[in-house]
Amino acid sequence: MPVNLSAPLASDLHPVAGVRIGVTEAGVRKAQRKDLTVFLLDEGTTVAGVFTQNRFCAAPVQVCREHLDGGQAIRAMVVNTGNANAGTGADGLARARATCEALAGHLGLAASQVLPFSTGVIMEPLPHERIAAALPAALADAQPGHWARAAEGIMTTDTLPKAFSTQVQLGGATVTITGISKGAGMIRPNMATMLGFLATDACIAPELLRPLVRELADQSFNRVTIDGDTSTNDSFVLMATHKARHAPITSLDSAEGRVLKTALLEVAQKLAQAIVRDGEGATKFITVRVEGGQTGEECRQVAYAIAHSPLVKTAFFASDPNLGRILAAVGYAGIADLDQTKIDLFLDDVHVAVQGGRNPAYREEDGQRVMKQSEITVRVVLGRGAAVDTVWTCDLSHDYVTINADYRS
Amino acid sequence: MPVNLSAPLASDLHPVAGVRIGVTEAGVRKAQRKDLTVFLLDEGTTVAGVFTQNRFCAAPVQVCREHLDGGQAIRAMVVNTGNANAGTGADGLARARATCEALAGHLGLAASQVLPFSTGVIMEPLPHERIAAALPAALADAQPGHWARAAEGIMTTDTLPKAFSTQVQLGGATVTITGISKGAGMIRPNMATMLGFLATDACIAPELLRPLVRELADQSFNRVTIDGDTSTNDSFVLMATHKARHAPITSLDSAEGRVLKTALLEVAQKLAQAIVRDGEGATKFITVRVEGGQTGEECRQVAYAIAHSPLVKTAFFASDPNLGRILAAVGYAGIADLDQTKIDLFLDDVHVAVQGGRNPAYREEDGQRVMKQSEITVRVVLGRGAAVDTVWTCDLSHDYVTINADYRS
Repeated sequence: MPVNLSAPLASDLHPVAGVRIGVTEAGVRKAQRKDLTVFLLDEGTTVAGVFTQNRFCAAPVQVCREHLDGGQAIRAMVVNTGNANAGTGADGLARARATCEALAGHLGLAASQVLPFSTGVIMEPLPHERIAAALPAALADAQPGHWARAAEGIMTTDTLPKAFSTQVQLGGATVTITGISKGAGMIRPNMATMLGFLATDACIAPELLRPLVRELADQSFNRVTIDGDTSTNDSFVLMATHKARHAPITSLDSAEGRVLKTALLEVAQKLAQAIVRDGEGATKFITVRVEGGQTGEECRQVAYAIAHSPLVKTAFFASDPNLGRILAAVGYAGIADLDQTKIDLFLDDVHVAVQGGRNPAYREEDGQRVMKQSEITVRVVLGRGAAVDTVWTCDLSHDYVTINADYRS
Repeated sequence: MPVNLSAPLASDLHPVAGVRIGVTEAGVRKAQRKDLTVFLLDEGTTVAGVFTQNRFCAAPVQVCREHLDGGQAIRAMVVNTGNANAGTGADGLARARATCEALAGHLGLAASQVLPFSTGVIMEPLPHERIAAALPAALADAQPGHWARAAEGIMTTDTLPKAFSTQVQLGGATVTITGISKGAGMIRPNMATMLGFLATDACIAPELLRPLVRELADQSFNRVTIDGDTSTNDSFVLMATHKARHAPITSLDSAEGRVLKTALLEVAQKLAQAIVRDGEGATKFITVRVEGGQTGEECRQVAYAIAHSPLVKTAFFASDPNLGRILAAVGYAGIADLDQTKIDLFLDDVHVAVQGGRNPAYREEDGQRVMKQSEITVRVVLGRGAAVDTVWTCDLSHDYVTINADYRS
């Protein structure tokens, strides 16, 4: 059961002018499953993306990087589930390219104007002929209002589709932002997650899109972790269709730039957090906030050590305030000159440890009360500086083991 | 159920001349449980130790370091289970020192000649009065033949005591090596594990003991991991009583030095591997060998990424050859210039991936056959150099979650 997350209502998701979406069943791995999604982007749309830092990155990730670097306008994207096309060598690259060529052929585009995305099992050959055969049905389905269908079409072990949408006023025009994501397992994005798609009709100078997508990923998808496993296929894409009728944004630090960035970040964070809320076996949503570091980097180091500790995660699952496990994780996070006598630990409002030891005023029942909640904030104060950073994660439950010990989940 | 490991027979454990051991019930956390062990060392014994690199190291670890650095001969050690005396601040240090003073008082020693060790729950005050009250019973129990009792006396969530013993001939004399360890959870030793004690009656130049204990730890306890959590209390101690009647060893590179080191390492590795075989919930013992790295360090980086991946560990639990998960872990291990097209993967004798892609000759049933074994070797060839390193780990099962989600395990 996802933690405080429900399926989006199609009516809550604003279409983004310039984006049409079609979804169909290609039978990539299983029959009668929406497993193929195409995005069609009007002329004038600009696209930027960030991708996994995993050195075993999948073939589609390599092709996406090539096509985005190639400089031709991206006009379509094709997403399949059921097969990650990763660990597939040169043959996998050829199949990813063939998929782009097939879609480009239908649309009168060059193959380099198409971005391919795959998610699913690793080290199996992609059945690209089945994808090619299903493209006409996907194209026939294309509509601006199909964001909820797309959120469903990119799911793998997700239990719920994930989509968020918002609108802001910019220079007298209404600007729409809508996005979808999927996650579930192998989630420790390093640059982005598998998969996030965010579109806006805002008018924004094309050269701003690349730094913007990095900044959004860094503050959203790159701050969540479920199991510490960085996927081979993580991809996060930002599309701007420039259809809203406001003066173009030429700086992210202008008043309009800040309004847009804040709204985009809000949607990106909700999409990223939705992945954690629907993490494999998750029963709790945990915010790990580390304060008082010398750098943001060391705050993240400590936050990830806590967020990845199987002992901490099982204690959350059990609602057991066995909070020494959190101190142990802080201690092995890799800060060589960390002084344990300066460290404080809070669980929501409860002050658990003071100067590296148990707070004399701490009572077990207070820790217990917070541990029973479905949303918990762990706050560690390092006492070394002014830097702060936050990571979102979930607990480790029996269901995580069950889901991942199912034969070829 | 431990993986291919059974309890030691007391008759298989050779006493080490110069070492006596006493075990009793102090009621540290639970009644009617052997939870207090003392080691008494004859005059002339030399002792060296390595301890956790966790910055939240426990009070007894801090006192051990002080006493070993102090230069006075170590003549006794006191080990309690049930309470780790970690995350306990200045008060914890005072309680660890009081325990040393109490034992030293009985023996007519200085407190600085006693090493204290604690294992158990973190962030609870050590009931040092109960330990002091039980010391006379422990001392009355002291015998050279009590190694099996000691192995039992230091257990926490271990399901079996762990002890190994061997004898070698050195310069016409029989030299004995006997050791015990405990583990179970929070196991990713960084310098040593919680807890390992290794004794020999060999005559070895005292200045060699410190480099020797580091080398032994590096090749044994520092190469095992269960859950990636480095304990606050890891301690590995080597005692040499100099009672065997051979000429003193003055170089570890002499013929005798090498014989002794090999025998010590054999026992240390068995003790370390026993911890993995009895890892919390373990059903499989997995050797991860990484070859062809530029440095040993990068081989270990890759080996630990595989050994810590919850997705890899649950696939082993399920006997599911979902081996793309191993490639994904190789890819995110942090080698920035790793070339995926040079990587081969083997599961025992089965060649799974070649040049970063699935081996065309690989058949699912071959992978399945190996995955069903209780002992499996994962071999990754990086194709970058000549370095090799090995790490031992276990799978991640439902029982790991059950054990650690028990309230205050």
